[in-house]
Amino acid sequence: MPPRLIESLSTTTELAEIFSDESVLQAMLDFEAALARAEARVGLVPRALAEVIMRAADAPAFDYAAIARETLRAGTPGIPVSKALTQRVRSMNAEAADFVHWGATSQDVADTAMVLLLKRAHPVITDDLARVERSLRKLSDEHKNTVMLGRTLMQAAPPITFGLKVAGWLGAIHRSGEGFDSAFEDVLILQFGGASGTLASLGERGLEVAQALAEELGLACPDAPWHAHRDRFASLLSACGVLTGALGKMAQDISLLMQSEVAEVAEPGDPGRGGSSTMPHKKNPIGCVLTLAAAARVPGLVAAFLTGMIQEHERAAGGWQAEWPIVASVIQSTGLAASSMAEVAERLSVDAERMRANIAATRGVVFAERAMMLLAPKLGREGAHKILEEAVQKSIAEKRHLTEILASMPAITKHLDAKILVDLEEPEKYLGSAEAFRAHLLSTASGTPHK
Amino acid sequence: MPPRLIESLSTTTELAEIFSDESVLQAMLDFEAALARAEARVGLVPRALAEVIMRAADAPAFDYAAIARETLRAGTPGIPVSKALTQRVRSMNAEAADFVHWGATSQDVADTAMVLLLKRAHPVITDDLARVERSLRKLSDEHKNTVMLGRTLMQAAPPITFGLKVAGWLGAIHRSGEGFDSAFEDVLILQFGGASGTLASLGERGLEVAQALAEELGLACPDAPWHAHRDRFASLLSACGVLTGALGKMAQDISLLMQSEVAEVAEPGDPGRGGSSTMPHKKNPIGCVLTLAAAARVPGLVAAFLTGMIQEHERAAGGWQAEWPIVASVIQSTGLAASSMAEVAERLSVDAERMRANIAATRGVVFAERAMMLLAPKLGREGAHKILEEAVQKSIAEKRHLTEILASMPAITKHLDAKILVDLEEPEKYLGSAEAFRAHLLSTASGTPHK
Amino acid sequence: MPPRLIESLSTTTELAEIFSDESVLQAMLDFEAALARAEARVGLVPRALAEVIMRAADAPAFDYAAIARETLRAGTPGIPVSKALTQRVRSMNAEAADFVHWGATSQDVADTAMVLLLKRAHPVITDDLARVERSLRKLSDEHKNTVMLGRTLMQAAPPITFGLKVAGWLGAIHRSGEGFDSAFEDVLILQFGGASGTLASLGERGLEVAQALAEELGLACPDAPWHAHRDRFASLLSACGVLTGALGKMAQDISLLMQSEVAEVAEPGDPGRGGSSTMPHKKNPIGCVLTLAAAARVPGLVAAFLTGMIQEHERAAGGWQAEWPIVASVIQSTGLAASSMAEVAERLSVDAERMRANIAATRGVVFAERAMMLLAPKLGREGAHKILEEAVQKSIAEKRHLTEILASMPAITKHLDAKILVDLEEPEKYLGSAEAFRAHLLSTASGTPHK
Amino acid sequence: MPPRLIESLSTTTELAEIFSDESVLQAMLDFEAALARAEARVGLVPRALAEVIMRAADAPAFDYAAIARETLRAGTPGIPVSKALTQRVRSMNAEAADFVHWGATSQDVADTAMVLLLKRAHPVITDDLARVERSLRKLSDEHKNTVMLGRTLMQAAPPITFGLKVAGWLGAIHRSGEGFDSAFEDVLILQFGGASGTLASLGERGLEVAQALAEELGLACPDAPWHAHRDRFASLLSACGVLTGALGKMAQDISLLMQSEVAEVAEPGDPGRGGSSTMPHKKNPIGCVLTLAAAARVPGLVAAFLTGMIQEHERAAGGWQAEWPIVASVIQSTGLAASSMAEVAERLSVDAERMRANIAATRGVVFAERAMMLLAPKLGREGAHKILEEAVQKSIAEKRHLTEILASMPAITKHLDAKILVDLEEPEKYLGSAEAFRAHLLSTASGTPHK
Repeated sequence: MPPRLIESLSTTTELAEIFSDESVLQAMLDFEAALARAEARVGLVPRALAEVIMRAADAPAFDYAAIARETLRAGTPGIPVSKALTQRVRSMNAEAADFVHWGATSQDVADTAMVLLLKRAHPVITDDLARVERSLRKLSDEHKNTVMLGRTLMQAAPPITFGLKVAGWLGAIHRSGEGFDSAFEDVLILQFGGASGTLASLGERGLEVAQALAEELGLACPDAPWHAHRDRFASLLSACGVLTGALGKMAQDISLLMQSEVAEVAEPGDPGRGGSSTMPHKKNPIGCVLTLAAAARVPGLVAAFLTGMIQEHERAAGGWQAEWPIVASVIQSTGLAASSMAEVAERLSVDAERMRANIAATRGVVFAERAMMLLAPKLGREGAHKILEEAVQKSIAEKRHLTEILASMPAITKHLDAKILVDLEEPEKYLGSAEAFRAHLLSTASGTPHK
Repeated sequence: MPPRLIESLSTTTELAEIFSDESVLQAMLDFEAALARAEARVGLVPRALAEVIMRAADAPAFDYAAIARETLRAGTPGIPVSKALTQRVRSMNAEAADFVHWGATSQDVADTAMVLLLKRAHPVITDDLARVERSLRKLSDEHKNTVMLGRTLMQAAPPITFGLKVAGWLGAIHRSGEGFDSAFEDVLILQFGGASGTLASLGERGLEVAQALAEELGLACPDAPWHAHRDRFASLLSACGVLTGALGKMAQDISLLMQSEVAEVAEPGDPGRGGSSTMPHKKNPIGCVLTLAAAARVPGLVAAFLTGMIQEHERAAGGWQAEWPIVASVIQSTGLAASSMAEVAERLSVDAERMRANIAATRGVVFAERAMMLLAPKLGREGAHKILEEAVQKSIAEKRHLTEILASMPAITKHLDAKILVDLEEPEKYLGSAEAFRAHLLSTASGTPHK
Repeated sequence: MPPRLIESLSTTTELAEIFSDESVLQAMLDFEAALARAEARVGLVPRALAEVIMRAADAPAFDYAAIARETLRAGTPGIPVSKALTQRVRSMNAEAADFVHWGATSQDVADTAMVLLLKRAHPVITDDLARVERSLRKLSDEHKNTVMLGRTLMQAAPPITFGLKVAGWLGAIHRSGEGFDSAFEDVLILQFGGASGTLASLGERGLEVAQALAEELGLACPDAPWHAHRDRFASLLSACGVLTGALGKMAQDISLLMQSEVAEVAEPGDPGRGGSSTMPHKKNPIGCVLTLAAAARVPGLVAAFLTGMIQEHERAAGGWQAEWPIVASVIQSTGLAASSMAEVAERLSVDAERMRANIAATRGVVFAERAMMLLAPKLGREGAHKILEEAVQKSIAEKRHLTEILASMPAITKHLDAKILVDLEEPEKYLGSAEAFRAHLLSTASGTPHK
Repeated sequence: MPPRLIESLSTTTELAEIFSDESVLQAMLDFEAALARAEARVGLVPRALAEVIMRAADAPAFDYAAIARETLRAGTPGIPVSKALTQRVRSMNAEAADFVHWGATSQDVADTAMVLLLKRAHPVITDDLARVERSLRKLSDEHKNTVMLGRTLMQAAPPITFGLKVAGWLGAIHRSGEGFDSAFEDVLILQFGGASGTLASLGERGLEVAQALAEELGLACPDAPWHAHRDRFASLLSACGVLTGALGKMAQDISLLMQSEVAEVAEPGDPGRGGSSTMPHKKNPIGCVLTLAAAARVPGLVAAFLTGMIQEHERAAGGWQAEWPIVASVIQSTGLAASSMAEVAERLSVDAERMRANIAATRGVVFAERAMMLLAPKLGREGAHKILEEAVQKSIAEKRHLTEILASMPAITKHLDAKILVDLEEPEKYLGSAEAFRAHLLSTASGTPHK
């Protein structure tokens, strides 16, 4: 089941499937089936009847449209689902019907179902993050000596290496990915509290059933139900916000480097990918664009979720009901960003010559700081700064290289041996600790799930 | 086509249909068909070939899933749609295929399609707003003399009338609805600019085609293409944010008044509506809850859209591609809020006796201000305030009525004729300009589309 | 009073002054003074005593720090202000003290004070918007024939004129400015409702006092108090969000055009403006940067305000108390964006030669669409598209001009007179309706306050 | 230095001081002084000259207003600060002036200064969180047997204990506090990268200086500069969003419980705290209100920060410059929420009798689920549900207790021994696992910094 057209630029097909009707309904039915099984295990429900419920809990047998319609009237998907399941069970075995949904409340069904969906989504996204990290590590190593312009406020600045730039992306994505993983771990827990969150209708057996239910579902059993405490979901969505931001920063840099006038890197340009309906020459930064679109959407969704945390008493009147589409959108957007950047990172083409040429095109003015450091011991920093300002302006006005200008200024030549400036514009000579930083970043980012 | 389960608490069925695959695709095909027709009118396309295109532009004939999949690769829905249409046209008439999408770019298709969807959504929401306004007006008139507690910071305050409270909701919804309508009018315009927004490929004929195309689609023709200027959409979404906020404020008040301990009003409680899977006694404020959920979601989506306004040059790399799901979510949430509050407003039951009883239960302390105003001419305001503080504390501590306490205080009785306090706790005597304000609000809110 | 350091990149000095302690306190005192005067006019307060209150209402005489501290305890600035004023009045005339704040509640003071501050801020921002519009109009006219690359998804596209680009900015800013002005008009109204919004403590005289008070303050008198209905503020802030987005789009374009590799325009580079502490050659896009920073901050603040609209009953417990810093930040950010872009627009330097050179640097591939339109009548659109794709790839691979490549392709030369392609790469020949659109945009944007 | 009036409801005095001009400027000067000291340690700067710089770096000696004004022109606070410091140093020792800011760029100053401010803010907030947790733990223990209504969708539901409710708040605040602490740890690191983030101007000595500088400042030394990678700040602000949400949920519950009609708990009502300017009887939930206001503001600010993460290349044009006021607002709002809830938690008065009375006022209908569970073994669940629905409606209509109604229904009496229903409405008999959950929550929340 592919994404709907209206959201076809905001999810991968795989994640769209996870939040499809069949998948969502099946997750709710899985809760009900596991509940029956758990209650059979502890002796609350006859095993044979539990098996009827388990057999009945098969999504394709249900009318999705009817359930969606009734959900709007009921104010929760849990009620129409347990009602429909009860009917189906009754048609199979009337006695069994009495044991459907035993001890649970509708929010238990909906919350745990969402957790089950998240459990499926997690490795999908993690796999793509691992692809991103692997490729960036490789790219960084390959280009540890590839010099390029630094750019601050989008203006040319002293050089860096492309390897360092890539390592910077890697570092941020890795750190954000760790936060993402850790938030995911916290969120993969059962919600099971009954009407008021005390499991009162199960009497003394509540904890026992909860424990068995968590085991059946492969989820952790929390210290207590969390129906009105949404901090774990909020942390997950926030972590998605941070991660999407880190992926978006990489996408922004690449899309800027792909500009026709810069042309230092390029996304793969397969047929059908990033073309134009009217312009045969276009090679668009599609992966970056989808990631930037995700990064534009997610922060507002995070805010919406945080806002909704203010939930009333033992079940919210509004905040809770707002959650599902927010969670689904954030997860799908995050996953799309990870998948898009994986494809970009794996197949990015890099034009090292153009990078060097773009440095050269500044005619050395990006080395003015270097010249200043070289001249300062002789002229004092202020004196050096003043001369450099003059020289830079001349370089720009006369379109001549800074080295040449400096070599022609008496204030320079009378004080110094011109040899000191001879390699002024060699980028490799002015990289400072770039390689050390790059190595540190790669080292920090290794040895973890996303390696 | 009902909403998907994952969003079944965030849209009406009618609005879900408008943003369904068939509807979205048909809107894009309508653009292409109208373009062919317009170009035939001005003589650029042979009429017979245009008719082939028009016949081919029928959504159910297309493979939605394939288009959604290719959209992700292309980075825009416009490309796969015009490609699929071209193929279908070619199978009908090879010559006609050359004229599909003539002079347009993919964003023209997508943007105008969204405008066409909005055009369908507008009256749906407006009708529900009109229902809200009509019912609130009626409710306000019926309860112009129904006294109830004012409540500030959720604490009891001097009385108001329920009619005034309702008129306040009406006023805010009406004003917001006017902004909503006005933003909608601005947004219902053609987007048609070609590759760079100059219609260059149509040579001298661009304006003529644009005008004809706008007429064919029943849209206004803007002064210029607006592919990278999204202020009109942004204004519409902002207006939805304000409107949802105004509806949400009404929902919040009603849900608070419906609390078991307050019990002054109630939503209709039909079978299947707002029940509980475990608690037969529950009558939940479902309409309010859905509205509050919408109001929790929309502000973040508005922020996401505003963020996306920062679009690069002649077509954005990210901001534009983020828009569709945001627009659809905001419109559907707004429509659901309007529809939910229409149902609530039309069928709200009001317990005027309980309202009066809740005033009485404060034992007159909410009339302390009134007492102060009555005593101030004799005792000075400060003196009066001091006595009242003492009296109020006594009233609360001894659970006796404020009037009784005051009548027993020598500081009062020696200065004044006790008769002045005899009707102290009659709410009707302390309503100030409530009725005038109510009448003004109703008058302002009349004579407009949402009456 | 300049901005504080922590917010020195997010406000102009002039707007910081409006939200300074003295200004905020004076606005609250102005309310109290006008209330006394209005109540004297209608005979509720002896004129001589009202004059004492008016004389006492002078901000510098108060202890701002003490008021700020007590505000936190009281939960509203209105209480400590009216208390401090009462004390000061009492020290001047004990009898007058009893008439301070007569009939008002603390929210009346705070809300109307904010309205008074907004009234001062409005013309400040409007003046800067007028500067922006004036300069853009001039710039657009000057460059109506200056050709430059169109750029879509940040890739080179068929040419436009710089005049059209500027007119696009103007159009969006003008439209957003109209929404901004209109929202401002709606918001400049008195809030005066007393404890529960009925003016009960003024008995029959409420409306009369309200009317007189509005006149004293130079504000409109609303149909009813709006203490818990914040739609007018919400509309204003939303309009600021849209306007900041429109200014931000212009800033984004300019900052991209200022990139070292593009170098088509430049912000003024006065001493101290946009330099670097380490790089003498830097000329940073400071005005754009400040505007983009504003545009990054405002959408979230708009969301926060919309969220806060869900206010409980007759005075909110949270939503209202969140408003002041949000309103001040949004207004200051919007004003800074307007002021920054005014300076940029007035003094932007434009390098028309570089613009043309950047077109030429694409070696004609941006004219592929044009070639396709020229060839289509002979080869069919599909045939033409296929040939062009081949030619474009050759042009890029061999670094030769598209015209040259095409002239060497037998598939072309055997079908056509090469003359048809001779001016293929002349930008002026492929501008379509650019000038017409530009003229329309300027015409729409004329005849209004921001002309 | 107290907060400014405009933000007096959004910060504590202590946190306002941390973000005051003097404090912010001193933090920037501390960076410059530590840099000189570090460079003296590694031998790059003569020790005597470094000492001059250290002596000069004293905030009160500077003109804050001038620095704020120039910051706006420079686009960064770092430039005017290092310029002003250089001037002051020069006036003390001309030679030393050449060594000010050696090797650093302005963003290094600004970012590290913000980190230093955060380092001061952290324990302030942590202390208040510890107070919250300590008090909630005590309150929960005291009220482990205090029964009260559960409330779902703000409707009465089966009982819980107040101890469990409090433990739920504690659990969420504790978990969020852990995330907050962990994010704080990650953020307390040096930023030091020079012009392009390579420390090129320090040649081979960059890492050595960085390490020494970090030691001087008591900060961790990161693997690499993070000038354009803002994920650590983003994680901190997100964690603040989650924490404020958890505190806000507690505030929301308490403010609802404080409603006049519910009256189960009350905030302390000291003189000047939460009063009303017109209503002597008011006892407002001020601590809750301030927390709810914070929780309304923070999510939008988080979104703004996440949005700003998309930073260009080696220094952003907009996203970075937007950060300072966002960070300061979020930290101050979070701290105010923690401080407010600490005061509320420490001094909350609880009316256990009223809690029990509010249960009784439902006349047993909240025990309908319990009755259903008791009857189901005899009547089947469906049969039981049907009877209960009838009984509940009767109970409401006739204002009689559910037990009484049930005892009068033949469908019940003929099947069962009435004794089974005799304690139906005793809350203590229907608490399920409430105490176990409470104990688990307290246990999970112990043994950590916030205990």
